[in-house]
Amino acid sequence: MDFKFSDCVQSFRSSAIRDLMSLATRSDIISFAGGMPGNELFPVEDMVEMSAKFSRKQWEEAMQYGPTPGNPGLVKELTEFLRRRNFPVDRNKLIITTGSLQGLNIIAKLFINPGDTVITENPVFIGGISSFLSYQANIESCDLDADGINIEQLKEKINRNPKPKLLYLTPNFHNPAGLVYSRRRREELIEVMRGTEIPIIEDDAYGELYYDKEGYERSRPMKTWVDAEMDSQILYTGSFSKIFGPGLRVAWALVPEIVYEKMQICKQSIDACTPTISQVFAENFIKTGKMEPYIEQIRKIYNTRRNYTLQAIKKYLPQEATYVTPIGGFYFWIKMPHGVDEEQLFRKVVERGAVFVLGSVFHPHAQKNGYIRVSYCNTPEEQIDKGIKIIGDAMKELMA
Amino acid sequence: MDFKFSDCVQSFRSSAIRDLMSLATRSDIISFAGGMPGNELFPVEDMVEMSAKFSRKQWEEAMQYGPTPGNPGLVKELTEFLRRRNFPVDRNKLIITTGSLQGLNIIAKLFINPGDTVITENPVFIGGISSFLSYQANIESCDLDADGINIEQLKEKINRNPKPKLLYLTPNFHNPAGLVYSRRRREELIEVMRGTEIPIIEDDAYGELYYDKEGYERSRPMKTWVDAEMDSQILYTGSFSKIFGPGLRVAWALVPEIVYEKMQICKQSIDACTPTISQVFAENFIKTGKMEPYIEQIRKIYNTRRNYTLQAIKKYLPQEATYVTPIGGFYFWIKMPHGVDEEQLFRKVVERGAVFVLGSVFHPHAQKNGYIRVSYCNTPEEQIDKGIKIIGDAMKELMA
Repeated sequence: MDFKFSDCVQSFRSSAIRDLMSLATRSDIISFAGGMPGNELFPVEDMVEMSAKFSRKQWEEAMQYGPTPGNPGLVKELTEFLRRRNFPVDRNKLIITTGSLQGLNIIAKLFINPGDTVITENPVFIGGISSFLSYQANIESCDLDADGINIEQLKEKINRNPKPKLLYLTPNFHNPAGLVYSRRRREELIEVMRGTEIPIIEDDAYGELYYDKEGYERSRPMKTWVDAEMDSQILYTGSFSKIFGPGLRVAWALVPEIVYEKMQICKQSIDACTPTISQVFAENFIKTGKMEPYIEQIRKIYNTRRNYTLQAIKKYLPQEATYVTPIGGFYFWIKMPHGVDEEQLFRKVVERGAVFVLGSVFHPHAQKNGYIRVSYCNTPEEQIDKGIKIIGDAMKELMA
Repeated sequence: MDFKFSDCVQSFRSSAIRDLMSLATRSDIISFAGGMPGNELFPVEDMVEMSAKFSRKQWEEAMQYGPTPGNPGLVKELTEFLRRRNFPVDRNKLIITTGSLQGLNIIAKLFINPGDTVITENPVFIGGISSFLSYQANIESCDLDADGINIEQLKEKINRNPKPKLLYLTPNFHNPAGLVYSRRRREELIEVMRGTEIPIIEDDAYGELYYDKEGYERSRPMKTWVDAEMDSQILYTGSFSKIFGPGLRVAWALVPEIVYEKMQICKQSIDACTPTISQVFAENFIKTGKMEPYIEQIRKIYNTRRNYTLQAIKKYLPQEATYVTPIGGFYFWIKMPHGVDEEQLFRKVVERGAVFVLGSVFHPHAQKNGYIRVSYCNTPEEQIDKGIKIIGDAMKELMA
């Protein structure tokens, strides 16, 4: 069969990921690999209660096609949810997507011709990269430090000719880097991007998962406080995956009307509409007042798991292993001590019954980078100490 | 913002469709426009019963990410469902998609570079066309008659240089043409395609909806009876949309392993997985034995609606309006009598309280073609006579 030339562009990473997933879900392995909430955290009681109370009309809505940009009921509830968080819902339009990955994919399809440049962070969310690569984008990346993206590198890249098509960022509780951009860095970023007309994708899948006041204040999305001119340049994406359940595949994009119109036309030829059954559950999760207390509850649980992990890291890892302590989200992003090869570490750790993700998976060009991602979102508290000890011991052995 | 050039390629049809959808869902209009099952037909009691019986484990599965190619439970049930229908499940692989539209979109993405040719039928399913056009395909179409695609036209088109990339067909209970290919035409088609290595997409969204023994026998998918050589050339797509509920967005493709591998990599960057909540419902719909009796029941209902519509057509339409009587599916495809302009007819009919879809919507290049599509799937029996009378009277007036 005569496939097009570009069809295998994304495959370099996918087999590695499949292998990893099979390790991550084995019950005899302590997994720090998953980027998904633990099964035990899902609001199953709420699902049972909601489904028991649905009227015939609600079930019918859940089984029928809905409008491509989203079911009106969900759009209404979500608009108010976002309004309470100061999002400029009146000067933008809200579109429901089948996961925020679909939002990224549609934006990529709308903007990227083969060879067009997308600027990303390094490290970067793998789903973003795979979306852009699948349209044959050229990826240029800027480093991250504890406050966010490197502004000098960004300046240099946006001024290149031909002009980059998109800037893709995850400022909050970054996957995999675990950091949250400072307000100051965000302001610098906005001033650098002003006037360039390059759309900024602000991917905020983790934004609700701050642990404390500092996390809350530092994580306010740019979309909520920029002026109208810059607002029209920001394509904001949010998701129910981390605050309800990823299996529902419901997310959203808050974007200027011109982008919304093109996104919905594009979505018509992708899946016609996001599953209405998921939308009906999501609408009612907000509407019946179950969502805010649920988010409150999981913030505490992730905070506890972060604390357990941090304690164990301090106890078992050599001081030469460095990281930013996350104040929200799911991830520690750990730099290997001098002389420790992360691939050797990986093999040793897996042999002894734990697993994490190699940093190269999150490198824009899949290069080895001396980092590992340790995720605690899906690791029961009682396993964390034991699992981190396995990693720390192996690290020390490799240093010796 | 600097959108890519091709981004508006699909828009020509979408605003017309949105206008139509708003008409089709108005309660004071008798609608023959929808291509979706009526709300009153959904197996709501089964949904209530299944959701009440789900274990905590099943709900957790429904809320978590699943494997990209599909949840193992659903894949297993569906494999047996297809095996009972003689599909070659052992020499192919099954992938779950978010609606069969997503399957078409992924296949398009895998095969089509800008300018590549896809051969379609004329008229053609609009979702297929929009998928192909969204990757900038060149569409070449072949006419349909009562037995299927025009073989002479097909022969001419497959031999062109450069060679076409795909052949897209809906042999069963065609949307919009309402016909089912004869066995003889299918055999001719297979012989013409043999050796060309051009993949044949066999879109079978309506295949289960035959009304009688003739419909059953005539509709056996090519995928179920071709030899192994030709089997490897057929990409078969099926869907739960017409036999469970389109709002779940669960469908499947049964394809050779090489296509499966590429499809799942592509799907990873589109939505990671089909909503698992929908997959858990679909799995249990089959597993608990609810699906086959449900299909049996809706076959009878659509048959009844077809009968009402046929009776009314015979009673009210001028004899000069011609059509193939459907023996399955949802649609009458009616050729206008000489001198009747379908756009004038449309305006008259809408004014008087009924609506159908203009044939041009299903033309590969959106051209006016002297046809209308009258869908009876979503029209309560008691409204059919009145609605068809409106169409027939208006037609006769325009002839006079």
